[in-house]
This record gives sequence, C-alpha cells and structure tokens, in this order.
Amino acid sequence: MTDPVALTAELIRCPSVTPSEGGALRLLETRLAAAGFECHRVDRGGVANLFARWGARGHRRTFGFNGHTDVVPAGDTAAWTHDPFGADQREGMLWGRGATDMKSGVAAFVAAAIDLVTDTPPDGALILTITGDEEGDAIDGTAALLDWMATEGEHMDVCLVGEPTSRETLGDMMKIGRRGSMTAYFTAHGVQGHSAYPHRAQNPIPALARLVERLAAYPLDEGTRHFDPSTLAVTTFDTGNPANNVIPGLCRATVNIRFNEAHSSDSLADWLRAEADKVTDETGIRIGMEVKVSGESFVTPPGPLSDLVAGAVEAETGMRPEMSTSGGTSDARFVKDFCPVVEFGLVGKTMHQVDERVEVAQIEALKRIYARILTDYFG
Amino acid sequence: MTDPVALTAELIRCPSVTPSEGGALRLLETRLAAAGFECHRVDRGGVANLFARWGARGHRRTFGFNGHTDVVPAGDTAAWTHDPFGADQREGMLWGRGATDMKSGVAAFVAAAIDLVTDTPPDGALILTITGDEEGDAIDGTAALLDWMATEGEHMDVCLVGEPTSRETLGDMMKIGRRGSMTAYFTAHGVQGHSAYPHRAQNPIPALARLVERLAAYPLDEGTRHFDPSTLAVTTFDTGNPANNVIPGLCRATVNIRFNEAHSSDSLADWLRAEADKVTDETGIRIGMEVKVSGESFVTPPGPLSDLVAGAVEAETGMRPEMSTSGGTSDARFVKDFCPVVEFGLVGKTMHQVDERVEVAQIEALKRIYARILTDYFG
Repeated sequence: MTDPVALTAELIRCPSVTPSEGGALRLLETRLAAAGFECHRVDRGGVANLFARWGARGHRRTFGFNGHTDVVPAGDTAAWTHDPFGADQREGMLWGRGATDMKSGVAAFVAAAIDLVTDTPPDGALILTITGDEEGDAIDGTAALLDWMATEGEHMDVCLVGEPTSRETLGDMMKIGRRGSMTAYFTAHGVQGHSAYPHRAQNPIPALARLVERLAAYPLDEGTRHFDPSTLAVTTFDTGNPANNVIPGLCRATVNIRFNEAHSSDSLADWLRAEADKVTDETGIRIGMEVKVSGESFVTPPGPLSDLVAGAVEAETGMRPEMSTSGGTSDARFVKDFCPVVEFGLVGKTMHQVDERVEVAQIEALKRIYARILTDYFG
Repeated sequence: MTDPVALTAELIRCPSVTPSEGGALRLLETRLAAAGFECHRVDRGGVANLFARWGARGHRRTFGFNGHTDVVPAGDTAAWTHDPFGADQREGMLWGRGATDMKSGVAAFVAAAIDLVTDTPPDGALILTITGDEEGDAIDGTAALLDWMATEGEHMDVCLVGEPTSRETLGDMMKIGRRGSMTAYFTAHGVQGHSAYPHRAQNPIPALARLVERLAAYPLDEGTRHFDPSTLAVTTFDTGNPANNVIPGLCRATVNIRFNEAHSSDSLADWLRAEADKVTDETGIRIGMEVKVSGESFVTPPGPLSDLVAGAVEAETGMRPEMSTSGGTSDARFVKDFCPVVEFGLVGKTMHQVDERVEVAQIEALKRIYARILTDYFG
C-alpha cells in the first residue's frame, strides 16, 4: 500500500515554486516507473511536465488524472508557524506550501494508481498528466502535455483533475465546469493641459469614469442552468498624474470579467468595444481597448463521468457532492477540448495562504475516493 | 545688453521641477549679483526662493517683479518632439518645459532689470522676487519671500507678475485679478477582494467614477461681470492596484476648481461634500474628502499701475491689452495683500503641455515691454 501522506510530505519538501521543478516530478517519475508506468518528461519553455501511462497505448478504456506539483511562493516566510517546505506533521495536520494546492491531490491519485496496478491490474489503461506550470502562465504546462499526447497518439477517455474543490467538508462539492475569464485594458486618450484652462485640454478621466461606471452597473446575465451570473469587476483606474493642476493626457482602467456560457470572450469584447465607442461618441475622447482571454467558459454536462465521481464520493463520505461551476480557472479548461473532464479534491481553504495545511485524514480519505473511482470505472 | 533668449535657454536646461531648485535660482543670483543686486536666498520648507534688490532699501519708488523658475513635470517624455530640458531652438521657436511658464518671463524681466541698472541707473529701487514653489503647494514660495520682506523692512510700491497672460498675440491681455482655486481629494473606501468573487468585495471604483463624472458634468455658474464661468477639472484617479484579479480596497481622485466671486471655497466644499454623500447613499461606498484652498478670488481695481503697464504694452505692440481676470491662480494672490499688483506676460498656449515652446521673437519683445515699463515708471 502506498502511503499518500508520506508521499505528500516528500513532495512538500521539494521546493517546486513555479517554474522550478524542485525534484517533485523526478520523485514521481521514479515511483511510477518502479510500478510499471511508462514515463516521459514533456518539458517545454523552461517548464517540466510528466506524462505517465500504465497499460497499452490507445486502450479503449483509458482513465486520466491531471494535476500539478508547482506551487505559489511562500510569501512572508516569517509569518508561517512552520517551515513552508518542511512538511511538519502535528496534531493531525500536515503543514507546507502545496499541502492543499495540490501536492496532496497528486499524491492521493498517484498512490491510488500505483496500488491499483500493483494489486488488481485492470483491463484498461491509466494516464497521469502532471505539470509544473499551473500556477504560472500555464502556457507550457498541461497544454504542452496535451499537445505532446496528440502528436504521440496518446488519448484519455475521461479525465479527473485533482484540484481542491470541496468547500467546507471533503466531498461537499465537485466541479463540472468553469467560468471563462477575460481582462480588458482600456486607455482613454485626451489632451493634456493646465487645470485652470480646461477648455484648452480634453480631460480623459470623466469619459473613462463614465465607461467603467456603466460597465459595472450592467447586469451581464442572471445565471444559467449550470452557472452563477457572470460578473464584471473594475480592478484598476489610474492616471499616474503627480500634479493636481495638470489635466492628464491619458488614463487607464482594467476590467475583469468572469463569464458563463451565455457569453464568449468574443461576444463580450464586442460589447465592451461598443460601450467604449458610445462614450467616445458622447465625449469625443478616444478609448483604446486590449483584451486578454484567460479561458472560455465550459461545462461537462452531468453524465457518466460526473455520476461515477459523485457516486464514489458519496460511497466514501456519505455526501453527494454539489456539481458546481464556481470559482477561478483551472487546467480543466485545456483538458475539456480532448475528453470529458471533471474535478474533485480537498477543501482548499488555506490554498495560497500563509500556513497552508491539510488534515492528514483528508489525504487518506481522498486516496480512498480516487481508488474507488478507478475500481468503479474499470469494474 | 543681456540676451533674454539665451538666459531662457539656460534656465530651461536647469531641471527645476517643483520642488527642485535645479540650478535655476543659483544661475539668476550669480547674474544679478554681478550687476550690483543685493541677493538673499529665502529658503523655507525645502523650497528655494531668491530675493534681489538694486538700489536703496525703502526707496520711495521701488518697482517689483515677481516670477517663478519651478516647472511642472515633463509628463510623457516620449511624446515630446524635443528634449523637455534641452532648450532646442528651431524655426524661430525655443522648446522645453518652462518655455512659456515662465522661465522666459523671468529671463525677460531679469534682463530688462540688469540692462536698466547697468545702462541708465534710475533714481529708485528694483526688487525681484523669484520663487521655486509656484507650481507646487506655494506655501513656502512667494508667501515666504513676502514674509521675509516684511520682517526685513523690504517693500515694493507696485509689483508686476511676469506670468503668461496674453491669449493669442503678445499684448492682447493682462490680468488685474484672479479666480480662486481649490483642490478636493476624495478617497473611496470599499472592501478588497478577488475579482472572481465580486459579491464578497465592495468595489470603490464605480462609486468614485460616478462621483467624478457627475462633478465634471455640473455647470458651476455662467460667469460674472469681471469673471469667466468657474471651472472644475478632475485631475487624478488612481487605484495603484498591481493585480488585475484583485478588487482594490480603496481608490483616490482629485478635483481642481477655479472659481469666481459667485462662490467661496466654503460654499464649494459644502457642495462637493453633499455630492459625495449622495453617491455614498446610492452605493454604500464611504467617500472621504479633504480640501486644500490655494486662494479665494480677487480683483485689483484698475489704477496707475495697470495704466502704466497697458500703456507700455500698447507702445510696443500697438495693442491695448484687455484687463482680464481669467485663468488660473498665480502668486499675485499673495502680493495683492502688500501692494498693487498686475500681471503681464507671454502667450501661454502650450504651458504645462507636451512640446511646451515659445517664439524667440516674443521673448525679445517681452523684454522690450518690461524695459519700457521700468523706464516709464522711473522716468
């Protein structure tokens, strides 16, 4: 039996702050290879990634796991009560950066996978895709693994992402989709001038203020069957003007939108552009816009995969997990283009925080859930 | 003969952005002392100021000039076609920050004063008060010079401020009064949060945007007999937020008002406070306000001094200048408590803008006008 707690502790001791591999993927490669997995390092753009398959390539029943070993920086190390890379175990808790996001999740599915193929080898295949670039730009992480798999003819029939998804108690929530996320950067161009002579200047501030106030007040939608209402947040507004007697020549604002499947980034960009143009028509102030799309919204509609996962969670915890699409973005946004994907994992409350930690018992329970999912899938 | 163009260029090359002295006052002190002026540096609160007198202290005919060598920041340096501190001369223009506001004006009256006392020493005295804090808080600038003069028994019988006052052509306008000026600093207090969960945060940006957009759209008055309509300019709006996925906890905006005698700074502060409170009622976002009053509005009634200046301008340019109270605030608001004061100077169209510049011929003409004013005064 592979101990997922010991494995989590070993992973926490690898200082794998993005984009550093920190020994975490080398450790997993050694363990998986010893258990009969065929391993390939798929490194790209200075980032390390690990592909591991047990069973025949192209098997008609191939179950996939996805996760990441990279972590966000420890932040204010002095504020931690335990070494963020020490993996101290005390009073039933394991402490360290990545304890919940998501070295424990990776350890749990690696342990479940190794035990399955060792103890009761199934008629099927298992693929583990583990990246070192989820917390960073995510350009050369899971996307690189999926590109490489397509080239090599590797395929997962379904995929479970082991991110922390539970809200209050292990098992109360899983994710079947994610909202899209995009950011619009506006620049309003006026004519600089002395504040005593506003008629000789063209002040861009009231125009941009009008735009962001309108955008913030606009109800994007009322939610959809699987999603909460889309949200828009004005996150920055800046002139950087050091003088209070100068009307600045330009000012900038940033708007972040988290959107459901009632929209696409294109439809939202069109709307933003139209609203900016309307303000330009009203004020004469030209407003430039650049858009960065982090991901479109997607949902894996409830079906065999989500039922499989929910059933195993219920059997182990007594709770039927809510099928949610809330929260931020994850690498499921890449996987969903290749096969049905859902996410299930620990309670993520302390993720990215000082004193990130996990209940030891939760790691063990998570391994049991993952093991049951595999048994049910191949059974 | 002192060349006012060369002196302007030398001053432009001194990077005297408020509160930096930049070498500008040291340069003038050297020149004036060499011409027989008694010079005193009157520095206060980290700001440099220069007092220079030629002739006997307390002479019954003492003519005063007032000006400043500090300048506003260059702004977007990349947008300038010439180095803002290079003093490039091309096609009859001299380029640089302070070219019109008001290193040329200072150079013109310094040159006129030096030539007068060198070539035809008058029966009288000349006092030059030149500050390095007109564009900034102006707390330790001309006010400091006037305080020091009162202590030392120094007195001007009349004073001419060399600010740019002409509108389209040199000589078309002088100033016999000024609007009041005040600045309101708003801080909107929300609750910081992740942009993916805006319902858990309280975004202060749309509330402050609503306030400044309303204030900018409000007509303060339609002007009075001696004054143009009061104006309001939003000069800053900032969050200083480095992350586009974080809703900031607070943001700040600055509003500058130039007002005529239809208002006082108190009545305007009451109005601003009421508008801010209205937005708070509508949005729940608390908005703090601090007000700084630069000066109330004032008029110097037409009399011998304004006639002297207008006559000299007419003799040199063929134009009788309009006696105006338009435009921003100037240090005349301090001088007017001590002696009759009027203002006359260049066309100020490009002041505080990118590519601030001045016609070389205007600087020479301005020196001739100042010289004639002195000759007429002492004649």
